[in-house]
Amino acid sequence: MDVLTNIRDVQKKAQQIRLDGKSIGFVPTMGYLHEGHMKLIKNARKENDFVILSIFINPLQFGENEDLDAYPRDEAHDLRQAEQSGVDLVFFPSTSTMYPTPLSLKIAVVRRADVLCGRTRPGHFEGVVTVLTKLFNICQPTRAYFGRKDAQQIAVVDALIHDFNFSIKLIPVETVRESDGLAKSSRNVNLIDQERAEAPSIQQALQYGKKLVEQGETDPNIILEKTREFLEFRTHGKIDYIEFLSYPELEPIETIDCQVILAAAVFYKRARLIDNVVFNDAGVTSG
Amino acid sequence: MDVLTNIRDVQKKAQQIRLDGKSIGFVPTMGYLHEGHMKLIKNARKENDFVILSIFINPLQFGENEDLDAYPRDEAHDLRQAEQSGVDLVFFPSTSTMYPTPLSLKIAVVRRADVLCGRTRPGHFEGVVTVLTKLFNICQPTRAYFGRKDAQQIAVVDALIHDFNFSIKLIPVETVRESDGLAKSSRNVNLIDQERAEAPSIQQALQYGKKLVEQGETDPNIILEKTREFLEFRTHGKIDYIEFLSYPELEPIETIDCQVILAAAVFYKRARLIDNVVFNDAGVTSG
Repeated sequence: MDVLTNIRDVQKKAQQIRLDGKSIGFVPTMGYLHEGHMKLIKNARKENDFVILSIFINPLQFGENEDLDAYPRDEAHDLRQAEQSGVDLVFFPSTSTMYPTPLSLKIAVVRRADVLCGRTRPGHFEGVVTVLTKLFNICQPTRAYFGRKDAQQIAVVDALIHDFNFSIKLIPVETVRESDGLAKSSRNVNLIDQERAEAPSIQQALQYGKKLVEQGETDPNIILEKTREFLEFRTHGKIDYIEFLSYPELEPIETIDCQVILAAAVFYKRARLIDNVVFNDAGVTSG
Repeated sequence: MDVLTNIRDVQKKAQQIRLDGKSIGFVPTMGYLHEGHMKLIKNARKENDFVILSIFINPLQFGENEDLDAYPRDEAHDLRQAEQSGVDLVFFPSTSTMYPTPLSLKIAVVRRADVLCGRTRPGHFEGVVTVLTKLFNICQPTRAYFGRKDAQQIAVVDALIHDFNFSIKLIPVETVRESDGLAKSSRNVNLIDQERAEAPSIQQALQYGKKLVEQGETDPNIILEKTREFLEFRTHGKIDYIEFLSYPELEPIETIDCQVILAAAVFYKRARLIDNVVFNDAGVTSG
């Protein structure tokens, strides 16, 4: 496994791989790899000739009140995990490599960004699409892998690929779950016992909402209300949001005649958990 | 010569060319090809295995008060010219092909755009970098060709390539001039005889300013003043601007210790002419 820190080296390597007629699977991460990342790598490994993992904590996607410096790091662990899971190349740039001079261009996300988690994280998705534009041009992937747990990120990356005509296939990967259905997250360790016992109700509530649709309920507001009721009854956590939108457009819906997302975020004492269910269509249409 | 209107077809063709180990020279235009374009194509032809010309009048780079509909068109002439000059592929998309849905992303140009011509054309360079981001991803060039006459466009494209890590070499091409030094432009036909006789003084004034530097003058303000004086004495045209900036950063300068641009725009009755001289260094540092 190669570990490269220089942009030109990665570009050259990626060009050579593509020139050899081989496909590149790309998994962008901020490091501190967990099972969710492992699943992304596993799928990339299965579907491509060459796998590139990037590890870069992107300052641009952190808000002023979000503690960039406190973001967890464990390089030795990450490189070991990458090697064991069959990654071919790790791109591990410094901040000054990625942002050597102040940017002259800024990307604004004018759709899909001001709902769900984006509502409380202004600028977050602009940082995400900026670093991905750079990483896509550096790593030149055939396919790029993102977890479905961050469904809004997938919607925004889908827009990035479509709007800018990147010749890259976006591959959404199913959320990894505990046996009781709770979405895996490094934040789950911050739950106290009772919270941990209640937390699977987030996914249960979303599945309940989905079932209401399948049973014929057509009013999005009723779906939302009943899902909220279901969840409030089963957890002491404070609901940050429950939203029911078109997907991946993330627009408000009046009737359920397209692919949709039902998503929730819940505050516990020391962790904010998110989860979602996307249904009513074939999947994200990117690529 | 192929003429393609579909994005996926061009992407496939470009990928095949690159896969064959061949280089692609790319000349983006809005059509109505003149000698300036011919020189871009000629250089692209000389330096690459495959030449792609795009013809697309990009609505995004026209301001509200700029008449998009009045922009001159002559497809038959353009295709003939392209064929004769050895273009391999013309990409000729419709507006709805390039912008099938409203964009979710917007690119802002926060440096290099609010001086020179950008000052009076808010949004223009944002439209330029947006369409180029798309065209770069569609045509996948090894080298992209732009005329030095629009020096600010080159500076902005240089920023685009650097900021977003496009693996593309920007090739600035010398301005084509009449025998008396006037930069060729389709607008020159709108000059009345006296204006046409005076217009070469724009380039003469810029050369005079450059000569002052070479002779040891170090104060940018004196260069500007004397250049303006020189020009005002030789033409009845109304000077829109004369500016003296670092290049390609387009920042104000206090001392002349970097590559610089001396640029002017002059209003005549029915034409606004621009010209520039870049000196004091090796050239644009892109690629």
